[in-house]
Amino acid sequence: MPLKSDEFYILKAIKAAHKGLGKTSPNPPVGAVVVDPQSGEIIAKGYHRAYGKPHAEREALAKAGKRARGAFLYVTLEPCCHYGKTPPCTEAILEAGIKRVVCGIRDPNPIACNGLNLLKEKGVDVKVGVCSSEVKYLTRFFLSKILRGRPWIIVKSAQSLDGRIAVSSGDSKWISGEKALKFSHKLRAQVDAIVVGKKTVLADNPELTTRFVKGKNPLRIILDSKVSLDPDLKVFEVSRDKRTILVCGEEVPEEKIQPFLKRGVEIWKIPLIEGKINLKAFVEKALKENILSILVEGGGNLQGAFLREGLIDEVFVAIAPMLIGDSEGIFSFSARPLKTLSQATKLYNSTIKKLGKDFLFHGFTQEGYKLLNTPLESL
Amino acid sequence: MPLKSDEFYILKAIKAAHKGLGKTSPNPPVGAVVVDPQSGEIIAKGYHRAYGKPHAEREALAKAGKRARGAFLYVTLEPCCHYGKTPPCTEAILEAGIKRVVCGIRDPNPIACNGLNLLKEKGVDVKVGVCSSEVKYLTRFFLSKILRGRPWIIVKSAQSLDGRIAVSSGDSKWISGEKALKFSHKLRAQVDAIVVGKKTVLADNPELTTRFVKGKNPLRIILDSKVSLDPDLKVFEVSRDKRTILVCGEEVPEEKIQPFLKRGVEIWKIPLIEGKINLKAFVEKALKENILSILVEGGGNLQGAFLREGLIDEVFVAIAPMLIGDSEGIFSFSARPLKTLSQATKLYNSTIKKLGKDFLFHGFTQEGYKLLNTPLESL
Repeated sequence: MPLKSDEFYILKAIKAAHKGLGKTSPNPPVGAVVVDPQSGEIIAKGYHRAYGKPHAEREALAKAGKRARGAFLYVTLEPCCHYGKTPPCTEAILEAGIKRVVCGIRDPNPIACNGLNLLKEKGVDVKVGVCSSEVKYLTRFFLSKILRGRPWIIVKSAQSLDGRIAVSSGDSKWISGEKALKFSHKLRAQVDAIVVGKKTVLADNPELTTRFVKGKNPLRIILDSKVSLDPDLKVFEVSRDKRTILVCGEEVPEEKIQPFLKRGVEIWKIPLIEGKINLKAFVEKALKENILSILVEGGGNLQGAFLREGLIDEVFVAIAPMLIGDSEGIFSFSARPLKTLSQATKLYNSTIKKLGKDFLFHGFTQEGYKLLNTPLESL
Repeated sequence: MPLKSDEFYILKAIKAAHKGLGKTSPNPPVGAVVVDPQSGEIIAKGYHRAYGKPHAEREALAKAGKRARGAFLYVTLEPCCHYGKTPPCTEAILEAGIKRVVCGIRDPNPIACNGLNLLKEKGVDVKVGVCSSEVKYLTRFFLSKILRGRPWIIVKSAQSLDGRIAVSSGDSKWISGEKALKFSHKLRAQVDAIVVGKKTVLADNPELTTRFVKGKNPLRIILDSKVSLDPDLKVFEVSRDKRTILVCGEEVPEEKIQPFLKRGVEIWKIPLIEGKINLKAFVEKALKENILSILVEGGGNLQGAFLREGLIDEVFVAIAPMLIGDSEGIFSFSARPLKTLSQATKLYNSTIKKLGKDFLFHGFTQEGYKLLNTPLESL
């Protein structure tokens, strides 16, 4: 078979990169494929498995061995040319004798960039900007850190058609169906941390794990400004791969915190604003701890607070085909009043698809949409 | 060309019937086509244009003239065999010499039915149950009257993704886009009456017409139990094709009503329950006035009240890709609290499609779904 389009191979590299999603922070997930330019055959694939492990390019080149000489390398992100945890990928590419390098996007990281220019100077054919939208989406957590200095924040909700996540009694089992639940666990496996508010823990006693799918558990972060939750709740059962962080105000007395520390729960003390965790300070702290992606999973007040602070980038809402109409029910997004409709948060690139018995809305806030449209396509 | 499938011609008959939609009450919209069984050619089409006008079969047969002899007749609803405003269609069919009659569904009207049996006895080939789901949907307003003794009730809302129809200040201009607005006017043209609550009239001063599309204006019905609205509002400007009914409590004094009567507004006095119009009594009255279909268009409290009374059959919700998150905003469905989620109103046969910048949800309550699944397919 002849050589296929550059897009074809970059999409294969994206697929490879997905296997590392959720495990690479503070690095990005990256995928690479080595291709024989005569036959079009994929000689080797590689992906970045975890922070500290080889970069995708190195993994693919090592697998390809001698067949890499004269071959084409397709990689989602521009190869690095600096010494980090691992030596620069540009070196490996030159040593392997790769003839042409095709990338999805430039690396905006100031310490890593110019890998493509270096390769070009050394006589390698280079191209960038292939399937760049798809690659930016794959790499959005990392881009958010580098370009904006904050984590990428996703909110995921399951609501009735009329915007309720529970009836006034608190009953919410189950608004959405099995497929929506599995989707939610898949999403959890892709992010560094899930965040929920105190009331959600109290109402549902959730585990916040990924038990219905393959994939790692994310960090579980509970916001409880005064530490009023019971340390015996499920989410405070921690182990090596099920970590929990309790976020509270700075003034919380030690004796309240002790029972959580004993169980292995980590504590972050964050300044309060009007009695609530200062969300901007919280996400700053998260970034310092190498959390590049946060999934906010309720309740309505916390989601509303993230919304009002302009801290949401991406929105998933599972819409169940039911009307609750409970005037005192719990709403998916609840925050301070608005004076005009123009202050509402518009969502971009919106889609809705069927998800089992439910529908899944997906869209981006202006913040997220802007980041995904950063130009990273030219040398 | 040869004769096509029965489904093909019944779908043509449905399309013809659509032209009468919204103008035939208390009759159903009906469409008919006369087909040459040799060539498959459609000789003539007919539809029921309005109450008192010829039935669809008669219109099609008159157009076909002598060519009807030996032809096939496709008609959405079983032909009548009784003298109503017009003589029985079965007579016309027999006189025309139609060889075969194919229908979508039986007519459940006790005074009209058995038309197909009569035709069969007279030697005409008959068949029923072709595209019956589509025909039941077309005929749902009439079926609701005959089978349940109440109008078919549709609710149509335009809301943000998180279920708000306005921010707390009342501002709601514009949540949904132009296409959603046009869709809403198209829907209005198909029903006998639109109903809105006092607050909606107060907030928006709407005209409740079909000015953005072709089609008749439906009756405009305003529920205002104590008659507190200003008679100078737009919706009280009436003319021959823009009628308005003000529905109020029985105890409202004459002097409050006079200014409305002077403007040509009609008044219905309906018993109250806890200070609000008794909706069951209201829809009974509507049916008596030959209103077979009602479109509820807000506000949230009225929609919630119809929901709780089990009076909604069909639901359209235009979902705008925006999050309002206003804790004091106005919700699309607002009614008394529920104890358990199982009390929520489940929706059946749900779909969501893109509608301009918005999404359009469409589904049926159990009530509506049940009616649409009434067996009307066998002789």
